Amino acid sequence: VRIDLNSDLGEGYGSWSLGDDAAILDIVTSANIACGFHAGDPQIMARTTALAAERGVNIGAHVSYPDLRGFGRRDMDVPADEVASDIVYQIGALDAFARAAGSAATYVKAHGALYNRMAHDEELAGAVIDAVASYDRPLTLLVLAGSAAERLAAQRGLPTVSEAFADRGYTHEGALVSRRQPGAVISDPAAVAARAVRLATEHLVDSVDGTTVEVSAGSLCVHGDSPGATALAAAVRSSLREAGVEVVAFAIAAPPVPIARPAAL
Amino acid sequence: VRIDLNSDLGEGYGSWSLGDDAAILDIVTSANIACGFHAGDPQIMARTTALAAERGVNIGAHVSYPDLRGFGRRDMDVPADEVASDIVYQIGALDAFARAAGSAATYVKAHGALYNRMAHDEELAGAVIDAVASYDRPLTLLVLAGSAAERLAAQRGLPTVSEAFADRGYTHEGALVSRRQPGAVISDPAAVAARAVRLATEHLVDSVDGTTVEVSAGSLCVHGDSPGATALAAAVRSSLREAGVEVVAFAIAAPPVPIARPAAL
Amino acid sequence: VRIDLNSDLGEGYGSWSLGDDAAILDIVTSANIACGFHAGDPQIMARTTALAAERGVNIGAHVSYPDLRGFGRRDMDVPADEVASDIVYQIGALDAFARAAGSAATYVKAHGALYNRMAHDEELAGAVIDAVASYDRPLTLLVLAGSAAERLAAQRGLPTVSEAFADRGYTHEGALVSRRQPGAVISDPAAVAARAVRLATEHLVDSVDGTTVEVSAGSLCVHGDSPGATALAAAVRSSLREAGVEVVAFAIAAPPVPIARPAAL
Amino acid sequence: VRIDLNSDLGEGYGSWSLGDDAAILDIVTSANIACGFHAGDPQIMARTTALAAERGVNIGAHVSYPDLRGFGRRDMDVPADEVASDIVYQIGALDAFARAAGSAATYVKAHGALYNRMAHDEELAGAVIDAVASYDRPLTLLVLAGSAAERLAAQRGLPTVSEAFADRGYTHEGALVSRRQPGAVISDPAAVAARAVRLATEHLVDSVDGTTVEVSAGSLCVHGDSPGATALAAAVRSSLREAGVEVVAFAIAAPPVPIARPAAL
Repeated sequence: VRIDLNSDLGEGYGSWSLGDDAAILDIVTSANIACGFHAGDPQIMARTTALAAERGVNIGAHVSYPDLRGFGRRDMDVPADEVASDIVYQIGALDAFARAAGSAATYVKAHGALYNRMAHDEELAGAVIDAVASYDRPLTLLVLAGSAAERLAAQRGLPTVSEAFADRGYTHEGALVSRRQPGAVISDPAAVAARAVRLATEHLVDSVDGTTVEVSAGSLCVHGDSPGATALAAAVRSSLREAGVEVVAFAIAAPPVPIARPAAL
Repeated sequence: VRIDLNSDLGEGYGSWSLGDDAAILDIVTSANIACGFHAGDPQIMARTTALAAERGVNIGAHVSYPDLRGFGRRDMDVPADEVASDIVYQIGALDAFARAAGSAATYVKAHGALYNRMAHDEELAGAVIDAVASYDRPLTLLVLAGSAAERLAAQRGLPTVSEAFADRGYTHEGALVSRRQPGAVISDPAAVAARAVRLATEHLVDSVDGTTVEVSAGSLCVHGDSPGATALAAAVRSSLREAGVEVVAFAIAAPPVPIARPAAL
Repeated sequence: VRIDLNSDLGEGYGSWSLGDDAAILDIVTSANIACGFHAGDPQIMARTTALAAERGVNIGAHVSYPDLRGFGRRDMDVPADEVASDIVYQIGALDAFARAAGSAATYVKAHGALYNRMAHDEELAGAVIDAVASYDRPLTLLVLAGSAAERLAAQRGLPTVSEAFADRGYTHEGALVSRRQPGAVISDPAAVAARAVRLATEHLVDSVDGTTVEVSAGSLCVHGDSPGATALAAAVRSSLREAGVEVVAFAIAAPPVPIARPAAL
Repeated sequence: VRIDLNSDLGEGYGSWSLGDDAAILDIVTSANIACGFHAGDPQIMARTTALAAERGVNIGAHVSYPDLRGFGRRDMDVPADEVASDIVYQIGALDAFARAAGSAATYVKAHGALYNRMAHDEELAGAVIDAVASYDRPLTLLVLAGSAAERLAAQRGLPTVSEAFADRGYTHEGALVSRRQPGAVISDPAAVAARAVRLATEHLVDSVDGTTVEVSAGSLCVHGDSPGATALAAAVRSSLREAGVEVVAFAIAAPPVPIARPAAL
């Protein structure tokens, strides 16, 4: 049994920082790196991709609506073709840093309001899928387990890895409980670690309704934006190991392929 | 005898447009495409790279300081490592669109205040050169003929193509006359066309001091931001042809190389 | 009988311009000036308020969601308290220029997606109304005739002026026909001018369903973002005059009141 | 003997925060509040002005070059008239929040690179002075003691208060030691507190050259962007009190003056 651990990284901006990226990079196997639209700037992207590459952590583009001030958490009615262009832009920018660091972006994960809407909005999910597929390097899409994005990507032949959240409540239908509802977040470290192990080994989780639901995920998302969160992520990793689960990236970055230099004048 | 013609393209933003990109793409052989820092947004970049790729026009990343409001024309004291990161970001973003359009970025040109400062500021020029060289696809740097950037790139082994301006005044030292000085801009179409032919065939231009100076350039820059400018660019191209000069891109975009898909979980 | 004519102005950004503000300021009596969130920058705001003040045109803050790239036309789920802060910010900035030009902002109009949503979203309309009321100078809110914003402002005691559109189709319920539906825009100048006169004198307009609906408005909105639009606006003004309608601003800017200088150390 | 203590506040942006504004507002008598150009957003401005108004702390607009990513610390060649417009914009926006909170902006302080350049660049300092004077409410300019801005404002009749830094090294000419030189920053709390008392009571400070220089300031700037900084600021305030120095704002915010409502249609 094996599973990937992913986390959001590089979420500072300019003089402002958020989370302890170095600590979390010692815990996770995949790094969702902000691309400048909800957080991150080119310097932070350069530094974060270099740190991830040094540790052999899998690098992904964490793409967002263009909304620095709202941290990408405000839903926006962006036409599908604009969303697609925004995503190609972010992937290209992030991949340039990953390759300059001797690695390469291997996957894409949507952030915040974009991620949430892709769980049910097929037009939007389709635009994101097509944007990822248009990139000339093969990429995997990291999606919410059971979402519209997962179904649609399967139909269109884009490889996906689905993720689950050990610290979030689930409905009996396998959806995340809204953050405005009770039971949305589980904060007890022991409970979170136990849920992580069960998700990894049995693909099951207890719902807020008392039922047990199947959630089949290749990756678990952990957070690192507070000292407590980092400790929780470390606890999840330890519990997985103790339970005999191999924590391993869902994809190894393919080394950059040398390309023939174009003929100059 | 042959020469490249380059022009700045994709310089709108959101609802705002600038210039007639389709018309200018029928004239030039190299397109300097804005990357969102002084102009351009992902949708405009997608559209402009697609137009350029359809016509077989050479695609370059037109990189800038981050200054949409000042159109990249305001000098900024950006530390060299920040400039380098900003340039890697812009190249990656533009190249993603070029490759999605079946072509690829083959060169980089700095814009506005960044371009001007690279003519004499060695630290800045060096940072830009290193950023271009760090990209994992070989790229040419389009530089001002006789600039610090040209000398430094030669020392560091980065391929360059130098450019000249048929519609700009030159000092007897081969530098551009400042736009604040008389003689900075030549507006008579016949004079501009004649200068273009002489630059291409003899590598010479009359200076504002009445002397003749050598300016050795592999590309001529033409503008397309007004109806008059587009007509002038067309006149330059016609005159070059009539003088037997072959107008041809300085580099052909290398076709994207297929890359092995990384192993998924 | 009298009516106000309002138009959107100052909608350029940096190097980009939109519309002929000087021409339209000779036609209208109220200027909705962009405040930097969907268009406009401080220099453009300074220039546009000065032009409006010179001509004695009524100055209003044209407030928007923060969305330069989408020109404020993309709906965003911005929490109500953030919207309120954004509006106070924009009013203060615009009013500073108006007062430096010897006039003052006298009203506020929402732009684009924010305007559209205020027609039916009471929570959002309420936040905008409270923001306008919190300004320490009394301001009028220019609203769509028959909208939720109009009703709510009346309940809360904020003065409003309602506006109508002579060049837009109306449903039999008095709402604007969506731009995605046929009949949304009327382009025949004679028809538009006739509708303007009827709206001003009879408060009636023919709906797309063939019925006649009552639309009671103190202001008509005209556009100036194309040469044709400017000519149409001029035709509307002429027809109103010929029909004996007095075209006059709905409010005269109160002269800035001298304030006692605070005691310095 | 009395002196003002000022500090930079409201320097977060969106999800990012910086410093403990509530703690520092219990120490200082004047709050330089960021206006959205180097930091701050409308919500943060609303919250920070409300906190300052509640405590009766003097409110000033902390104006900057437009440079969120560089936190206003990167020098930019912005033409003087653009700088002036940017400053009017920021003052108006901040004052709107201050007045909505029942107070009013009473002064302006430049931030970062703009502040540094106003110490010697007369054209720039003049543009800032004219912008502040153009506001229709009288404002004081908080300037570096001994700077070009201080001299020029005196010539033009704009009230100023000059400031000194107890934790910064001074040259024998009374200028700040550059942060790139040794002796630029003094970190020993006792030394800083002693320098603060001497600046307030004797208008003298020891220079890095071992001489004593006169620095005549009506305000001392303290920082609050780290826990250590807040403690240092508190120590400065205590030492001043113990030395019998009255810590008091250099200006009391004038209450907003009621203005006659403009006549509506």
